[in-house]
Amino acid sequence: MKEIPGGITAPRGFLAAGIYAGIKRTNKLDLAIIYSEIDAVVAGTFTTNKVKAPPVILTERQIKKGITRAVVVNSGNANACTGPQGMKDAVEMVELTADALLINKSLVCVSSTGVIGETLPMDKIRPAIRQAADSINPEGGKDAASAIMTTDTFPKAVAVRGRIGGKTVTVGGIAKGSGMIYPNMATMLAFISTDVAIDRNTLKKVLKKAVDQSFNRITVDGDTSTNDMVLCMANGMAGNSPLDDQDLPQFQEMIWYVCRTLSKMIVKDGEGATKLVEIRVRRAKSDKDAEKVGFAVANSSLVKTALFAGDPNWGRIMAAIGYSGANIREDHISISFDKVKMVKKGIGTGKEVEKKVAGVMQHKEYTITIDLNVGSSETSVWTTDLSYDYVKINVAYRS
Amino acid sequence: MKEIPGGITAPRGFLAAGIYAGIKRTNKLDLAIIYSEIDAVVAGTFTTNKVKAPPVILTERQIKKGITRAVVVNSGNANACTGPQGMKDAVEMVELTADALLINKSLVCVSSTGVIGETLPMDKIRPAIRQAADSINPEGGKDAASAIMTTDTFPKAVAVRGRIGGKTVTVGGIAKGSGMIYPNMATMLAFISTDVAIDRNTLKKVLKKAVDQSFNRITVDGDTSTNDMVLCMANGMAGNSPLDDQDLPQFQEMIWYVCRTLSKMIVKDGEGATKLVEIRVRRAKSDKDAEKVGFAVANSSLVKTALFAGDPNWGRIMAAIGYSGANIREDHISISFDKVKMVKKGIGTGKEVEKKVAGVMQHKEYTITIDLNVGSSETSVWTTDLSYDYVKINVAYRS
Repeated sequence: MKEIPGGITAPRGFLAAGIYAGIKRTNKLDLAIIYSEIDAVVAGTFTTNKVKAPPVILTERQIKKGITRAVVVNSGNANACTGPQGMKDAVEMVELTADALLINKSLVCVSSTGVIGETLPMDKIRPAIRQAADSINPEGGKDAASAIMTTDTFPKAVAVRGRIGGKTVTVGGIAKGSGMIYPNMATMLAFISTDVAIDRNTLKKVLKKAVDQSFNRITVDGDTSTNDMVLCMANGMAGNSPLDDQDLPQFQEMIWYVCRTLSKMIVKDGEGATKLVEIRVRRAKSDKDAEKVGFAVANSSLVKTALFAGDPNWGRIMAAIGYSGANIREDHISISFDKVKMVKKGIGTGKEVEKKVAGVMQHKEYTITIDLNVGSSETSVWTTDLSYDYVKINVAYRS
Repeated sequence: MKEIPGGITAPRGFLAAGIYAGIKRTNKLDLAIIYSEIDAVVAGTFTTNKVKAPPVILTERQIKKGITRAVVVNSGNANACTGPQGMKDAVEMVELTADALLINKSLVCVSSTGVIGETLPMDKIRPAIRQAADSINPEGGKDAASAIMTTDTFPKAVAVRGRIGGKTVTVGGIAKGSGMIYPNMATMLAFISTDVAIDRNTLKKVLKKAVDQSFNRITVDGDTSTNDMVLCMANGMAGNSPLDDQDLPQFQEMIWYVCRTLSKMIVKDGEGATKLVEIRVRRAKSDKDAEKVGFAVANSSLVKTALFAGDPNWGRIMAAIGYSGANIREDHISISFDKVKMVKKGIGTGKEVEKKVAGVMQHKEYTITIDLNVGSSETSVWTTDLSYDYVKINVAYRS
């Protein structure tokens, strides 16, 4: 397995386009179409937020049949909290895309991201969908990645190629962050394409497993969006015989690699983030406990400001572990920053060590390992620091 | 019932002092003693954080007998995550205070707040306790309120006087915030004194009820500290006959008034806060649901930055309601800012209304009412905005 360029259009038979429809106030790409030349098996995971945007509700319905051909995505407007008009607009986006691509409307998924509570500017979107459909091409992955961005500062795309069952198989993906990043299943928009031949139920399982270990393990600000969605399309053009138990782990690895890479890109581009920090929890009493500790630490505003300051304020980490709700014993806890052990049996290891930790905290990326020493479960959560720019970006978002 | 000056020393028989021990790096008061001239009935609520500071563990033990005479409090150092040495130091603080005040050590409570993970500078604390004990006086409430501050920008004190059963009864209190403010029972330090005669179990119930509706309904940053504690001492010097069912509501009201006033002061002084916003949740399916919605909205970083910006970004409120976990129906939700209805049946009421809401959001204090319209439970949660200064204060806290 090796990384290759091309993103979502790297696998055989996938075309894409990203254009400027005029939804965003700035002159940036804001509408994308992803298209498979032949019917593709599809699986998806969706936001657990009870306030669901119409495009999320509609796409959940559309993929029930398990086959799709195209996805239309706009940024700049989430089409959320828009009531019956919002659903009408989502349906119209699907119909227009189907017409423009000459495919059945049951084969089109739709997704929106951006400001909540405003109806879509359909007068701008209608001509744009036709224009995007006319522009799809095998190198369109890059533009598509740009067109789904909101406050992201760089497009997020990755692709990997490997050999499975004697055939060359490719997996590609694009994603967008970067505010409202918090798990509970899908956590933002991500679209994944592959030319592998796979049955629908297996694809579902593979995707769920990968999402749980990637997109569901990242956090920027603890908010869960109304529009989160991960879609994976597999069109079988690699020509492999459907994946059996022997080949499956290899494919799982490829999907997981793409999901994990996109997840890390999202955290790295977290609003105002200057650091990418892995919170690794070891020897928890249960998987649930490991998660509780990981997310309590990763979401603590006090921990996150300390990460920004580069201040080895391990007391804030201890406090977050304490209120996480997990079974812990204070005097069993160790905390390390990369390889430097800052806390042993619940107590700090001294001012000299703090200086070393301050050195580790200068790095752009590092790992904080929390050893609870009460069990055998472990997990990792990726987080960012909380900087002045986080406040700045979110103060300015609508103005 | 009317407000009077004096804080914790307003009730009969209570003396206090606040002095500079040298624990804080700046030249500010950092050690307080609160003292009752005669034995007082005592009740307390304590942090639910599983990482508990030694003084919290010790004071929980000390008040089991239900009688106390004095509390010694230091700021600048939380004596948390300090292991066996921390417990030794807490015990020594109790013993020194008992000796200096010529009372039994079983009648002294201890409390610490400040940086986590550093052992107490006992060489400074030892002489300071004697000095504070020598300084206690009936006007010492003000200094005591200052001496328990950490990042607070103003001391928090209140007292009320009323007549119960033909006698004049006074309740006074002091508190400190202001980071790590999140409920789950006690949420910071607060000490309450009263001269009412009351039995221990009744005092417990009255305090719990008041704390649940005040300190447990405020949030600044979603973090729960290792040191939170609310203590209430009642010395009976008002000379009333022990409270019966007829007089109890009046006393409950006084305690509640003191707790609520101190709570609001804490939120107002939330780190970097420029606004005090009440999140009022109406017609929820259950009390639990009302709380879930209130805290999800009150703790959302995206909502809080919008409060700071004065931006009527109601979509962020809808999103927080959606991920709160409460039973809701999107198309049943109304949201008002003071009396201006911004959302009706889950949909925004338009750009003109947004302008009015932007006006409301200029106020220092206002109420956001969320009507879920699916039941009959309601609650209120008090929160602040998230400003640049929140980040600034927490970046700088240890340096």
